[in-house]
Amino acid sequence: MSMDSDHPRASQNRIKRWTRLLEAKFRREDGLFLAEGVKVVEELLGSDWQTEALLVLPEKNLRWEGVVAPVADQTPVYSLSRPEFKKLSQDKEPDGVIAVVRKKEPPDVSSWLAEAAGPLLVAHEITNPQNLGALIRSACWFGFAGVILSANSVDWTHPKVIRSSMGGVFKMTVLTGVDLLALLADLRGKFLLVGSDVRKGVAPHPVAKKAALLVGSESHGLPASLLECAAVRWRIPGGTGAESLSLPQAAAIMMYEMSRGRMVNGE
Amino acid sequence: MSMDSDHPRASQNRIKRWTRLLEAKFRREDGLFLAEGVKVVEELLGSDWQTEALLVLPEKNLRWEGVVAPVADQTPVYSLSRPEFKKLSQDKEPDGVIAVVRKKEPPDVSSWLAEAAGPLLVAHEITNPQNLGALIRSACWFGFAGVILSANSVDWTHPKVIRSSMGGVFKMTVLTGVDLLALLADLRGKFLLVGSDVRKGVAPHPVAKKAALLVGSESHGLPASLLECAAVRWRIPGGTGAESLSLPQAAAIMMYEMSRGRMVNGE
Repeated sequence: MSMDSDHPRASQNRIKRWTRLLEAKFRREDGLFLAEGVKVVEELLGSDWQTEALLVLPEKNLRWEGVVAPVADQTPVYSLSRPEFKKLSQDKEPDGVIAVVRKKEPPDVSSWLAEAAGPLLVAHEITNPQNLGALIRSACWFGFAGVILSANSVDWTHPKVIRSSMGGVFKMTVLTGVDLLALLADLRGKFLLVGSDVRKGVAPHPVAKKAALLVGSESHGLPASLLECAAVRWRIPGGTGAESLSLPQAAAIMMYEMSRGRMVNGE
Repeated sequence: MSMDSDHPRASQNRIKRWTRLLEAKFRREDGLFLAEGVKVVEELLGSDWQTEALLVLPEKNLRWEGVVAPVADQTPVYSLSRPEFKKLSQDKEPDGVIAVVRKKEPPDVSSWLAEAAGPLLVAHEITNPQNLGALIRSACWFGFAGVILSANSVDWTHPKVIRSSMGGVFKMTVLTGVDLLALLADLRGKFLLVGSDVRKGVAPHPVAKKAALLVGSESHGLPASLLECAAVRWRIPGGTGAESLSLPQAAAIMMYEMSRGRMVNGE
Protein backbone atom coordinates (compact mmCIF):
# COMPACT_ATOMS: atom_id res chain seq x y z
CA MET A 1 0.00 0.00 0.00
CA SER A 2 1.38 3.38 -0.98
CA MET A 3 0.06 5.23 2.08
CA ASP A 4 3.12 4.52 4.20
CA SER A 5 5.20 6.87 2.07
CA ASP A 6 8.45 7.94 3.76
CA HIS A 7 7.61 11.62 3.35
CA PRO A 8 6.58 13.37 6.58
CA ARG A 9 3.01 14.56 7.01
CA ALA A 10 2.63 18.32 6.65
CA SER A 11 1.72 20.24 9.80
CA GLN A 12 -1.52 22.24 9.92
CA ASN A 13 0.58 25.33 10.18
CA ARG A 14 2.35 24.67 6.91
CA ILE A 15 -0.90 23.75 5.17
CA LYS A 16 -2.35 27.07 6.28
CA ARG A 17 0.61 28.92 4.78
CA TRP A 18 0.23 27.10 1.44
CA THR A 19 -3.54 27.68 1.37
CA ARG A 20 -2.85 31.42 1.56
CA LEU A 21 -1.16 31.07 -1.83
CA LEU A 22 -4.52 30.54 -3.51
CA GLU A 23 -4.96 34.32 -3.11
CA ALA A 24 -3.03 36.85 -5.16
CA LYS A 25 -2.32 39.23 -2.27
CA PHE A 26 -0.73 36.49 -0.17
CA ARG A 27 1.34 35.26 -3.13
CA ARG A 28 2.59 38.82 -3.41
CA GLU A 29 3.26 39.14 0.32
CA ASP A 30 4.98 35.78 0.66
CA GLY A 31 6.79 35.78 -2.71
CA LEU A 32 5.62 32.20 -3.35
CA PHE A 33 3.19 30.43 -5.66
CA LEU A 34 1.87 26.92 -6.39
CA ALA A 35 2.70 24.79 -9.43
CA GLU A 36 0.63 21.62 -9.91
CA GLY A 37 1.00 18.48 -11.97
CA VAL A 38 3.75 16.09 -13.03
CA LYS A 39 4.67 17.86 -16.28
CA VAL A 40 4.58 21.29 -14.65
CA VAL A 41 6.81 20.18 -11.77
CA GLU A 42 9.12 18.48 -14.26
CA GLU A 43 9.60 21.78 -16.12
CA LEU A 44 10.09 23.59 -12.80
CA LEU A 45 12.77 21.18 -11.57
CA GLY A 46 14.58 21.41 -14.90
CA SER A 47 14.63 25.22 -14.68
CA ASP A 48 16.56 27.70 -12.52
CA TRP A 49 13.47 28.50 -10.43
CA GLN A 50 13.70 27.71 -6.73
CA THR A 51 11.42 25.01 -5.32
CA GLU A 52 10.62 25.54 -1.63
CA ALA A 53 8.73 22.30 -1.11
CA LEU A 54 6.91 19.50 -2.89
CA LEU A 55 3.47 18.47 -1.63
CA VAL A 56 2.35 14.98 -2.53
CA LEU A 57 -0.71 12.77 -2.29
CA PRO A 58 0.66 9.37 -1.24
CA GLU A 59 -2.05 7.33 -3.02
CA LYS A 60 -0.92 8.77 -6.38
CA ASN A 61 2.76 7.91 -5.88
CA LEU A 62 2.97 5.92 -9.09
CA ARG A 63 2.32 9.14 -11.02
CA TRP A 64 4.71 11.50 -9.20
CA GLU A 65 7.44 9.20 -7.88
CA GLY A 66 9.50 9.60 -11.06
CA VAL A 67 9.81 13.39 -10.73
CA VAL A 68 9.94 13.61 -6.94
CA ALA A 69 12.43 10.83 -6.10
CA PRO A 70 15.45 12.38 -7.91
CA VAL A 71 15.18 15.65 -5.91
CA ALA A 72 13.88 14.33 -2.58
CA ASP A 73 17.23 14.70 -0.85
CA GLN A 74 17.60 18.42 -1.71
CA THR A 75 13.94 19.46 -1.52
CA PRO A 76 11.51 19.01 1.40
CA VAL A 77 8.65 16.70 0.42
CA TYR A 78 5.44 16.61 2.49
CA SER A 79 2.55 14.14 2.41
CA LEU A 80 -0.96 15.56 2.43
CA SER A 81 -4.25 13.82 3.06
CA ARG A 82 -6.72 13.74 0.20
CA PRO A 83 -8.94 16.56 1.61
CA GLU A 84 -5.86 18.70 2.34
CA PHE A 85 -4.54 18.14 -1.18
CA LYS A 86 -7.90 18.79 -2.84
CA LYS A 87 -8.09 22.21 -1.18
CA LEU A 88 -4.88 23.28 -2.92
CA SER A 89 -5.47 21.44 -6.20
CA GLN A 90 -6.95 22.82 -9.45
CA ASP A 91 -7.64 19.40 -10.95
CA LYS A 92 -10.60 17.06 -10.75
CA GLU A 93 -8.25 14.11 -11.07
CA PRO A 94 -5.00 15.47 -9.62
CA ASP A 95 -1.60 13.99 -10.48
CA GLY A 96 -0.89 14.23 -6.76
CA VAL A 97 2.03 16.67 -6.78
CA ILE A 98 2.15 20.42 -6.16
CA ALA A 99 5.32 22.49 -5.85
CA VAL A 100 5.71 25.61 -3.74
CA VAL A 101 7.83 27.95 -5.88
CA ARG A 102 9.80 31.02 -4.87
CA LYS A 103 9.08 34.01 -7.13
CA LYS A 104 12.01 35.53 -9.04
CA GLU A 105 12.71 39.22 -9.33
CA PRO A 106 11.43 40.25 -12.77
CA PRO A 107 14.14 41.57 -15.10
CA ASP A 108 14.31 45.24 -16.00
CA VAL A 109 11.94 45.60 -18.98
CA SER A 110 14.09 47.73 -21.25
CA SER A 111 17.33 45.86 -20.80
CA TRP A 112 15.51 42.56 -21.18
CA LEU A 113 13.87 43.79 -24.39
CA ALA A 114 17.19 44.87 -25.83
CA GLU A 115 18.36 41.26 -25.64
CA ALA A 116 15.09 39.39 -26.37
CA ALA A 117 15.98 36.72 -28.90
CA GLY A 118 12.59 35.66 -30.21
CA PRO A 119 9.20 37.16 -30.97
CA LEU A 120 7.01 38.56 -28.20
CA LEU A 121 3.43 38.09 -27.18
CA VAL A 122 1.91 41.30 -25.83
CA ALA A 123 -1.45 40.77 -24.12
CA HIS A 124 -3.95 43.36 -22.96
CA GLU A 125 -6.15 42.68 -19.91
CA ILE A 126 -6.43 38.92 -20.12
CA THR A 127 -8.55 38.06 -17.09
CA ASN A 128 -9.28 34.37 -17.65
CA PRO A 129 -6.50 32.32 -16.03
CA GLN A 130 -6.95 29.31 -18.32
CA ASN A 131 -6.68 31.54 -21.37
CA LEU A 132 -3.51 33.17 -20.07
CA GLY A 133 -2.01 29.76 -19.27
CA ALA A 134 -2.86 28.52 -22.76
CA LEU A 135 -1.27 31.61 -24.35
CA ILE A 136 1.94 31.06 -22.38
CA ARG A 137 1.99 27.37 -23.30
CA SER A 138 1.67 28.13 -27.02
CA ALA A 139 4.20 30.98 -26.89
CA CYS A 140 6.64 28.56 -25.31
CA TRP A 141 6.04 25.93 -28.01
CA PHE A 142 6.68 28.46 -30.75
CA GLY A 143 9.92 29.71 -29.22
CA PHE A 144 8.70 33.14 -28.16
CA ALA A 145 11.11 35.08 -25.96
CA GLY A 146 8.45 36.29 -23.58
CA VAL A 147 4.91 37.25 -22.74
CA ILE A 148 4.22 40.83 -21.70
CA LEU A 149 1.05 41.61 -19.78
CA SER A 150 -0.74 44.91 -19.22
CA ALA A 151 -2.10 46.08 -15.89
CA ASN A 152 -5.52 44.60 -14.99
CA SER A 153 -4.52 41.16 -16.19
CA VAL A 154 -5.04 38.07 -14.08
CA ASP A 155 -1.99 37.48 -11.86
CA TRP A 156 0.23 35.13 -13.87
CA THR A 157 1.19 33.24 -10.67
CA HIS A 158 -2.47 32.20 -10.24
CA PRO A 159 -2.42 28.41 -9.78
CA LYS A 160 -4.70 27.91 -12.81
CA VAL A 161 -2.37 29.95 -15.04
CA ILE A 162 0.65 27.92 -13.94
CA ARG A 163 -1.30 24.67 -14.38
CA SER A 164 -2.59 25.42 -17.86
CA SER A 165 0.76 26.84 -19.02
CA MET A 166 2.01 23.27 -18.48
CA GLY A 167 5.14 24.74 -16.96
CA GLY A 168 5.73 27.20 -19.81
CA VAL A 169 6.12 29.94 -17.17
CA PHE A 170 9.42 28.32 -16.13
CA LYS A 171 10.84 28.38 -19.65
CA MET A 172 10.10 31.92 -20.71
CA THR A 173 9.98 35.43 -19.31
CA VAL A 174 6.61 36.79 -18.23
CA LEU A 175 6.45 40.51 -17.50
CA THR A 176 3.39 42.02 -15.92
CA GLY A 177 1.81 45.37 -15.17
CA VAL A 178 3.55 46.87 -18.20
CA ASP A 179 2.34 50.14 -19.72
CA LEU A 180 1.65 48.80 -23.22
CA LEU A 181 1.42 52.18 -24.96
CA ALA A 182 4.89 53.10 -23.74
CA LEU A 183 6.17 49.63 -24.55
CA LEU A 184 4.87 49.68 -28.12
CA ALA A 185 6.42 53.09 -28.72
CA ASP A 186 9.66 51.53 -27.57
CA LEU A 187 9.32 48.40 -29.72
CA ARG A 188 8.47 50.22 -32.94
CA GLY A 189 11.32 49.99 -35.43
CA LYS A 190 12.83 47.02 -33.59
CA PHE A 191 9.85 44.67 -33.84
CA LEU A 192 7.15 44.32 -36.45
CA LEU A 193 4.02 45.09 -34.44
CA VAL A 194 1.14 42.82 -35.43
CA GLY A 195 -2.32 43.52 -33.99
CA SER A 196 -4.89 40.74 -33.78
CA ASP A 197 -8.32 41.92 -34.92
CA VAL A 198 -11.55 39.96 -35.32
CA ARG A 199 -13.12 42.55 -37.62
CA LYS A 200 -10.63 43.25 -40.34
CA GLY A 201 -7.06 42.61 -41.28
CA VAL A 202 -4.91 40.62 -43.66
CA ALA A 203 -4.59 36.87 -43.27
CA PRO A 204 -1.72 35.79 -40.99
CA HIS A 205 1.48 34.97 -42.85
CA PRO A 206 5.13 34.25 -42.12
CA VAL A 207 7.08 37.38 -41.23
CA ALA A 208 10.80 37.76 -41.85
CA LYS A 209 11.71 40.17 -39.09
CA LYS A 210 11.39 39.93 -35.33
CA ALA A 211 7.75 40.48 -34.45
CA ALA A 212 5.46 41.18 -31.52
CA LEU A 213 1.91 39.88 -31.54
CA LEU A 214 -0.67 42.04 -29.73
CA VAL A 215 -3.78 40.33 -28.44
CA GLY A 216 -6.72 41.55 -26.37
CA SER A 217 -9.16 39.78 -24.09
CA GLU A 218 -11.66 37.23 -25.38
CA SER A 219 -14.61 39.52 -24.75
CA HIS A 220 -13.24 42.92 -25.72
CA GLY A 221 -10.32 42.41 -28.11
CA LEU A 222 -7.69 45.12 -28.36
CA PRO A 223 -8.61 48.73 -27.55
CA ALA A 224 -8.33 51.15 -30.48
CA SER A 225 -5.38 52.97 -28.86
CA LEU A 226 -3.27 49.80 -29.02
CA LEU A 227 -4.53 48.60 -32.40
CA GLU A 228 -3.42 51.94 -33.83
CA CYS A 229 0.16 51.19 -32.77
CA ALA A 230 0.23 48.04 -34.89
CA ALA A 231 2.01 48.21 -38.23
CA VAL A 232 -0.30 45.52 -39.58
CA ARG A 233 -3.55 43.89 -38.46
CA TRP A 234 -4.18 40.18 -38.79
CA ARG A 235 -7.55 38.50 -38.99
CA ILE A 236 -7.94 34.75 -39.39
CA PRO A 237 -10.18 34.03 -42.40
CA GLY A 238 -13.33 32.04 -41.67
CA GLY A 239 -16.56 32.34 -39.73
CA THR A 240 -19.95 33.77 -40.52
CA GLY A 241 -22.40 35.76 -38.43
CA ALA A 242 -21.89 35.70 -34.69
CA GLU A 243 -19.16 33.06 -34.84
CA SER A 244 -15.73 33.64 -33.44
CA LEU A 245 -12.56 31.75 -32.82
CA SER A 246 -11.52 31.51 -29.19
CA LEU A 247 -8.60 33.63 -28.03
CA PRO A 248 -6.13 30.79 -27.29
CA GLN A 249 -6.82 29.22 -30.69
CA ALA A 250 -6.60 32.48 -32.63
CA ALA A 251 -3.38 33.46 -30.88
CA ALA A 252 -1.88 29.99 -31.45
CA ILE A 253 -2.51 30.26 -35.18
CA MET A 254 -0.89 33.69 -35.31
CA MET A 255 2.13 32.58 -33.26
CA TYR A 256 2.42 29.56 -35.54
CA GLU A 257 2.61 31.84 -38.58
CA MET A 258 5.21 34.03 -36.89
CA SER A 259 7.36 31.05 -36.03
CA ARG A 260 6.99 29.67 -39.57
CA GLY A 261 8.46 32.93 -40.78
CA ARG A 262 11.49 32.51 -38.53
CA MET A 263 12.00 28.95 -39.72
CA VAL A 264 11.60 29.88 -43.37
CA ASN A 265 14.26 32.52 -42.85
CA GLY A 266 16.54 30.13 -41.03
CA GLU A 267 16.83 32.31 -37.95
CA MET B 1 -36.01 47.00 -10.91
CA SER B 2 -35.65 44.11 -13.30
CA MET B 3 -37.00 41.45 -10.93
CA ASP B 4 -40.63 41.99 -11.91
CA SER B 5 -40.00 40.46 -15.31
CA ASP B 6 -43.19 39.41 -17.08
CA HIS B 7 -41.96 35.84 -17.50
CA PRO B 8 -43.65 33.30 -15.16
CA ARG B 9 -41.65 31.67 -12.38
CA ALA B 10 -40.70 28.07 -13.15
CA SER B 11 -42.39 25.40 -11.00
CA GLN B 12 -40.24 23.10 -8.86
CA ASN B 13 -41.41 20.25 -11.03
CA ARG B 14 -40.03 21.81 -14.18
CA ILE B 15 -36.78 22.75 -12.48
CA LYS B 16 -36.38 19.12 -11.42
CA ARG B 17 -36.82 17.98 -15.02
CA TRP B 18 -34.22 20.46 -16.28
CA THR B 19 -31.77 19.50 -13.53
CA ARG B 20 -31.93 15.91 -14.81
CA LEU B 21 -30.39 17.19 -18.04
CA LEU B 22 -27.06 17.70 -16.30
CA GLU B 23 -26.68 13.91 -16.55
CA ALA B 24 -26.00 12.11 -19.85
CA LYS B 25 -28.41 9.26 -19.22
CA PHE B 26 -31.34 11.60 -18.60
CA ARG B 27 -30.46 13.67 -21.68
CA ARG B 28 -30.64 10.42 -23.62
CA GLU B 29 -33.92 9.35 -22.01
CA ASP B 30 -35.60 12.73 -22.38
CA GLY B 31 -34.12 13.68 -25.76
CA LEU B 32 -33.30 17.15 -24.44
CA PHE B 33 -30.18 19.12 -23.52
CA LEU B 34 -29.18 22.55 -22.16
CA ALA B 35 -27.56 25.39 -24.11
CA GLU B 36 -26.26 28.33 -22.09
CA GLY B 37 -25.21 31.86 -22.89
CA VAL B 38 -26.36 34.72 -25.11
CA LYS B 39 -24.22 33.82 -28.14
CA VAL B 40 -25.05 30.13 -27.88
CA VAL B 41 -28.80 30.82 -27.66
CA GLU B 42 -28.48 33.26 -30.55
CA GLU B 43 -26.98 30.53 -32.74
CA LEU B 44 -29.67 28.10 -31.57
CA LEU B 45 -32.53 30.45 -32.39
CA GLY B 46 -31.04 31.14 -35.81
CA SER B 47 -30.85 27.42 -36.56
CA ASP B 48 -33.44 24.75 -37.34
CA TRP B 49 -33.06 23.17 -33.89
CA GLN B 50 -36.17 23.15 -31.72
CA THR B 51 -36.15 25.20 -28.50
CA GLU B 52 -38.46 23.77 -25.83
CA ALA B 53 -38.05 26.59 -23.34
CA LEU B 54 -35.83 29.50 -22.34
CA LEU B 55 -34.78 29.86 -18.72
CA VAL B 56 -33.78 33.31 -17.59
CA LEU B 57 -32.29 35.06 -14.60
CA PRO B 58 -34.33 38.29 -14.28
CA GLU B 59 -31.48 40.35 -12.77
CA LYS B 60 -29.42 39.83 -15.96
CA ASN B 61 -32.18 40.94 -18.31
CA LEU B 62 -30.03 43.60 -19.94
CA ARG B 63 -27.79 40.84 -21.27
CA TRP B 64 -30.42 38.41 -22.58
CA GLU B 65 -33.39 40.64 -23.43
CA GLY B 66 -32.16 41.18 -26.98
CA VAL B 67 -32.19 37.48 -27.88
CA VAL B 68 -35.20 36.43 -25.80
CA ALA B 69 -37.69 39.22 -26.63
CA PRO B 70 -37.99 38.45 -30.37
CA VAL B 71 -39.01 34.82 -29.71
CA ALA B 72 -40.94 35.20 -26.44
CA ASP B 73 -44.34 34.82 -28.11
CA GLN B 74 -43.50 31.44 -29.72
CA THR B 75 -41.27 29.99 -26.99
CA PRO B 76 -42.08 29.51 -23.29
CA VAL B 77 -39.79 31.67 -21.14
CA TYR B 78 -39.42 30.97 -17.41
CA SER B 79 -37.83 33.05 -14.66
CA LEU B 80 -35.51 31.29 -12.24
CA SER B 81 -34.15 32.48 -8.91
CA ARG B 82 -30.40 32.93 -8.67
CA PRO B 83 -29.81 29.64 -6.75
CA GLU B 84 -32.06 27.74 -9.18
CA PHE B 85 -30.21 29.20 -12.16
CA LYS B 86 -26.76 28.58 -10.66
CA LYS B 87 -27.56 24.88 -10.30
CA LEU B 88 -28.08 24.57 -14.06
CA SER B 89 -25.37 27.02 -15.14
CA GLN B 90 -21.79 26.24 -16.21
CA ASP B 91 -20.56 29.80 -15.78
CA LYS B 92 -19.13 31.70 -12.86
CA GLU B 93 -20.66 34.89 -14.21
CA PRO B 94 -23.65 33.61 -16.18
CA ASP B 95 -25.26 35.61 -19.00
CA GLY B 96 -28.57 34.63 -17.42
CA VAL B 97 -30.09 32.60 -20.23
CA ILE B 98 -30.24 28.82 -20.80
CA ALA B 99 -32.23 27.10 -23.54
CA VAL B 100 -33.77 23.64 -23.27
CA VAL B 101 -33.16 22.10 -26.69
CA ARG B 102 -34.86 19.09 -28.32
CA LYS B 103 -32.31 16.63 -29.74
CA LYS B 104 -32.49 15.89 -33.48
CA GLU B 105 -32.30 12.46 -35.03
CA PRO B 106 -28.72 12.07 -36.28
CA PRO B 107 -28.45 11.61 -40.05
CA ASP B 108 -27.46 8.27 -41.54
CA VAL B 109 -23.65 8.34 -41.52
CA SER B 110 -22.98 6.99 -45.01
CA SER B 111 -25.56 9.05 -46.85
CA TRP B 112 -24.48 12.15 -44.92
CA LEU B 113 -20.84 11.50 -45.80
CA ALA B 114 -21.67 11.12 -49.49
CA GLU B 115 -22.94 14.70 -49.47
CA ALA B 116 -20.55 16.33 -46.96
CA ALA B 117 -19.42 19.56 -48.58
CA GLY B 118 -16.41 20.52 -46.46
CA PRO B 119 -13.56 18.87 -44.62
CA LEU B 120 -14.20 16.67 -41.60
CA LEU B 121 -12.81 16.51 -38.11
CA VAL B 122 -12.57 12.93 -36.84
CA ALA B 123 -11.86 12.71 -33.11
CA HIS B 124 -10.91 9.65 -31.05
CA GLU B 125 -12.00 9.39 -27.41
CA ILE B 126 -12.07 13.06 -26.47
CA THR B 127 -13.20 13.00 -22.86
CA ASN B 128 -12.70 16.62 -21.80
CA PRO B 129 -15.92 18.55 -22.55
CA GLN B 130 -14.18 21.93 -22.87
CA ASN B 131 -11.74 20.48 -25.38
CA LEU B 132 -14.54 18.96 -27.44
CA GLY B 133 -16.46 22.23 -27.37
CA ALA B 134 -13.36 24.12 -28.50
CA LEU B 135 -12.78 21.65 -31.35
CA ILE B 136 -16.36 22.10 -32.57
CA ARG B 137 -16.08 25.89 -32.33
CA SER B 138 -12.91 25.94 -34.44
CA ALA B 139 -14.27 23.41 -36.95
CA CYS B 140 -17.28 25.68 -37.37
CA TRP B 141 -15.11 28.76 -37.92
CA PHE B 142 -13.09 26.99 -40.61
CA GLY B 143 -16.16 25.77 -42.50
CA PHE B 144 -15.86 22.10 -41.68
CA ALA B 145 -18.85 19.97 -42.68
CA GLY B 146 -18.92 18.00 -39.48
CA VAL B 147 -17.26 16.50 -36.44
CA ILE B 148 -17.25 12.72 -36.11
CA LEU B 149 -16.69 11.19 -32.68
CA SER B 150 -15.66 7.68 -31.69
CA ALA B 151 -17.28 5.66 -28.93
CA ASN B 152 -16.01 6.52 -25.42
CA SER B 153 -16.06 10.24 -26.13
CA VAL B 154 -17.71 12.70 -23.80
CA ASP B 155 -21.39 13.11 -24.72
CA TRP B 156 -21.47 16.07 -27.10
CA THR B 157 -24.75 17.29 -25.55
CA HIS B 158 -22.92 17.81 -22.22
CA PRO B 159 -23.71 21.40 -21.16
CA LYS B 160 -20.00 22.31 -21.05
CA VAL B 161 -19.50 21.08 -24.63
CA ILE B 162 -22.45 23.13 -25.89
CA ARG B 163 -21.25 26.17 -23.90
CA SER B 164 -17.66 26.06 -25.13
CA SER B 165 -18.69 25.30 -28.72
CA MET B 166 -20.27 28.79 -28.59
CA GLY B 167 -23.24 27.36 -30.45
CA GLY B 168 -21.13 25.67 -33.13
CA VAL B 169 -23.12 22.47 -32.49
CA PHE B 170 -26.14 24.17 -34.06
CA LYS B 171 -24.29 25.04 -37.26
CA MET B 172 -22.63 21.77 -38.09
CA THR B 173 -23.28 18.05 -37.95
CA VAL B 174 -21.87 16.13 -35.00
CA LEU B 175 -21.94 12.33 -35.27
CA THR B 176 -21.09 10.20 -32.31
CA GLY B 177 -20.32 6.60 -31.37
CA VAL B 178 -18.91 6.02 -34.85
CA ASP B 179 -16.60 3.05 -35.53
CA LEU B 180 -13.62 5.05 -36.77
CA LEU B 181 -11.75 2.14 -38.36
CA ALA B 182 -14.75 1.35 -40.55
CA LEU B 183 -15.30 5.04 -41.24
CA LEU B 184 -11.71 5.64 -42.35
CA ALA B 185 -11.83 2.63 -44.66
CA ASP B 186 -14.91 4.24 -46.16
CA LEU B 187 -13.38 7.71 -46.46
CA ARG B 188 -10.15 6.57 -48.10
CA GLY B 189 -10.03 7.64 -51.74
CA LYS B 190 -12.72 10.28 -51.16
CA PHE B 191 -10.92 12.31 -48.48
CA LEU B 192 -7.25 12.93 -47.85
CA LEU B 193 -6.78 11.39 -44.40
CA VAL B 194 -4.46 13.51 -42.25
CA GLY B 195 -3.35 12.14 -38.87
CA SER B 196 -2.21 14.51 -36.13
CA ASP B 197 0.92 13.24 -34.40
CA VAL B 198 3.02 14.88 -31.70
CA ARG B 199 6.08 12.71 -32.40
CA LYS B 200 6.71 12.90 -36.11
CA GLY B 201 5.16 14.12 -39.30
CA VAL B 202 5.44 16.81 -41.92
CA ALA B 203 4.54 20.39 -41.11
CA PRO B 204 0.87 21.24 -41.75
CA HIS B 205 0.24 22.80 -45.14
CA PRO B 206 -2.67 23.74 -47.38
CA VAL B 207 -4.25 20.71 -49.07
CA ALA B 208 -6.03 20.88 -52.40
CA LYS B 209 -8.49 18.02 -52.02
CA LYS B 210 -11.23 17.39 -49.49
CA ALA B 211 -9.58 16.28 -46.28
CA ALA B 212 -10.37 14.69 -42.94
CA LEU B 213 -8.29 15.58 -39.89
CA LEU B 214 -7.85 12.79 -37.32
CA VAL B 215 -7.11 13.84 -33.74
CA GLY B 216 -6.75 11.87 -30.52
CA SER B 217 -7.19 12.82 -26.89
CA GLU B 218 -4.92 15.31 -25.15
CA SER B 219 -3.33 12.62 -22.99
CA HIS B 220 -3.06 9.69 -25.39
CA GLY B 221 -3.07 11.03 -28.94
CA LEU B 222 -4.22 8.75 -31.74
CA PRO B 223 -3.89 4.99 -31.35
CA ALA B 224 -1.52 3.31 -33.83
CA SER B 225 -4.41 1.51 -35.56
CA LEU B 226 -5.95 4.84 -36.60
CA LEU B 227 -2.67 6.61 -37.35
CA GLU B 228 -1.88 3.83 -39.79
CA CYS B 229 -5.02 4.69 -41.77
CA ALA B 230 -3.75 8.23 -42.39
CA ALA B 231 -2.24 9.00 -45.78
CA VAL B 232 -0.06 11.65 -44.17
CA ARG B 233 0.91 12.64 -40.62
CA TRP B 234 1.16 16.24 -39.52
CA ARG B 235 3.24 17.55 -36.64
CA ILE B 236 3.39 21.22 -35.76
CA PRO B 237 7.03 22.34 -35.64
CA GLY B 238 8.21 23.77 -32.31
CA GLY B 239 8.74 22.70 -28.74
CA THR B 240 11.60 21.11 -26.89
CA GLY B 241 11.72 18.47 -24.18
CA ALA B 242 8.49 17.75 -22.35
CA GLU B 243 6.65 20.63 -23.97
CA SER B 244 3.49 20.13 -25.94
CA LEU B 245 0.82 22.18 -27.61
CA SER B 246 -2.67 21.71 -26.22
CA LEU B 247 -5.16 19.73 -28.29
CA PRO B 248 -7.57 22.58 -29.13
CA GLN B 249 -4.67 24.78 -30.26
CA ALA B 250 -2.94 22.07 -32.31
CA ALA B 251 -6.21 21.07 -33.98
CA ALA B 252 -7.08 24.72 -34.72
CA ILE B 253 -3.74 25.22 -36.49
CA MET B 254 -4.29 22.11 -38.59
CA MET B 255 -7.87 23.05 -39.47
CA TYR B 256 -6.62 26.52 -40.38
CA GLU B 257 -4.12 25.01 -42.81
CA MET B 258 -6.82 22.78 -44.32
CA SER B 259 -9.15 25.71 -44.83
CA ARG B 260 -6.30 27.79 -46.32
CA GLY B 261 -5.95 25.04 -48.90
CA ARG B 262 -9.59 25.29 -49.84
CA MET B 263 -9.37 29.07 -50.13
CA VAL B 264 -6.18 28.95 -52.17
CA ASN B 265 -7.92 26.56 -54.52
CA GLY B 266 -11.02 28.73 -54.68
CA GLU B 267 -13.34 25.95 -53.60
